[in-house]
Amino acid sequence: MKKISIATIQGKWSGDFESNATWYREQALSLKGKNLDLLILPELFHTPYFPFEENADFFNLAIEKDDPLVKEWQDIAKALNTVIVFPFFEKRANGIYHNSAFVFERDGSIAGLYRKSHIPDDPAFYEKYYFIPGDTGFEPIKTSAGTLGVLICWDQWFPEAARIMSLKGADLLIYPTAIGWMQSEPETIYPRQQDSWMTIMRGHAIANRTFVIAANRTGTEGELDFWGTSFTAAPDGYLIQKADTNFSGVLFSEIDLSETEENRRWWPHFRDRRPELYKDILKIWGTP
Amino acid sequence: MKKISIATIQGKWSGDFESNATWYREQALSLKGKNLDLLILPELFHTPYFPFEENADFFNLAIEKDDPLVKEWQDIAKALNTVIVFPFFEKRANGIYHNSAFVFERDGSIAGLYRKSHIPDDPAFYEKYYFIPGDTGFEPIKTSAGTLGVLICWDQWFPEAARIMSLKGADLLIYPTAIGWMQSEPETIYPRQQDSWMTIMRGHAIANRTFVIAANRTGTEGELDFWGTSFTAAPDGYLIQKADTNFSGVLFSEIDLSETEENRRWWPHFRDRRPELYKDILKIWGTP
Repeated sequence: MKKISIATIQGKWSGDFESNATWYREQALSLKGKNLDLLILPELFHTPYFPFEENADFFNLAIEKDDPLVKEWQDIAKALNTVIVFPFFEKRANGIYHNSAFVFERDGSIAGLYRKSHIPDDPAFYEKYYFIPGDTGFEPIKTSAGTLGVLICWDQWFPEAARIMSLKGADLLIYPTAIGWMQSEPETIYPRQQDSWMTIMRGHAIANRTFVIAANRTGTEGELDFWGTSFTAAPDGYLIQKADTNFSGVLFSEIDLSETEENRRWWPHFRDRRPELYKDILKIWGTP
Repeated sequence: MKKISIATIQGKWSGDFESNATWYREQALSLKGKNLDLLILPELFHTPYFPFEENADFFNLAIEKDDPLVKEWQDIAKALNTVIVFPFFEKRANGIYHNSAFVFERDGSIAGLYRKSHIPDDPAFYEKYYFIPGDTGFEPIKTSAGTLGVLICWDQWFPEAARIMSLKGADLLIYPTAIGWMQSEPETIYPRQQDSWMTIMRGHAIANRTFVIAANRTGTEGELDFWGTSFTAAPDGYLIQKADTNFSGVLFSEIDLSETEENRRWWPHFRDRRPELYKDILKIWGTP
């Protein structure tokens, strides 16, 4: 048995930076004394979803590694004695920005950093304007709560990322995210879009026989309605937990990381892979 | 618009070779005059699911390319004026056996051959004893009904196979299969197993924004209850059609292959892949 207790915060942008920061801090601090192992925040939780438009002023929202907000959440990790997945808009250097996540250890130290590898760019999601595709690769981050395969939002549509994290030893996959519906699209397609999103991540759980956790934002920002529905899936894709679309607050789940070993014995996908047949995965397109 | 009409036969082993062959032939011939474009048969439809045990006599069930059964189904393709996916136990040479599928063109000619690449081996599914892992790779087969990404059963658990077929131009993915429950396992896990199976293939549809069709067998053979549930999924994973567990007969669906283009414009996963980060896919395990 290797049980870990997990809290995910699903929140909405409060409308201003101060009250938003306060809300997330208070949600986290309410967890004190709960013997939490892992706390997961949603993508870019400290800002509005600014990529809805291309605006050079929004680069001011990026923070550096020594920003007081980083320090504050390192202190929260220590206060709660929990590992924290802390997504943030990273200013790496002048003109070098990423969509990133730190992982803090229980003592507040930095256990690792992941930079979002797959960057979307669609109407109202102009992320290629802001974020350079990450150069961290898919390196799981070792922590006292397990080896974490941290990926971010759009990464969730790419089985390659989930597979490599798992092949490199991730005990579970974690997707902080910010995804929602566009009000200009017909509501009739909303359930199908949401189900695609959940199904592909449940598929990663099944392919790799690993746990998958998604932490999404909720609420309306401009023409975007974020769909919440943060969830935890078992190694067979079964939904252990799922939040409502409009829920704001903390979700708890407890998982036993040792289940992946049992799952991989009964469903030995790793045994039967054919890497010698997979070379075309490295191409943009399979034919010249 | 590039509409194709598809029939899938979901059947159970009849108990003897002659009546089984007759049943499948009659199901197919009932489709005459229906302007079918594509007919899909389940994995190893011409035999019982013999890999439930290791028995050297069962190699006698394998057929060669010039077997009368092959010729018969080429003639059926011509009679129905339809492309047929024809799975069979292939004897390639003495001691060289595969789990394969021919694709026949409407004129009865052979359009291509796929040999199952991922071979399972679990209690009651002793396939490694019978089938050498295929050496065809993941080459889609061009036909007048579209470019077919034919894969077989256990291949369905491997996102790499679906991805490469799609990168090489498959218009849709087709999985003849033979999967079911073991009576020795508790019935409480049956729905979860079946849902994992469907979810991972729906995930391949979503990842590649392509159609996915699965053709399973039904009925009980020894301690195996095949779970039927043959289905067609849209490029967003939506279930267009799903058969019941116990259904025997023909399933019809009509799909518009041009939808994949629209899907890939709105969900441009191919645009945003990072092949330079995917090299570890070619390893058995990500660390030495």
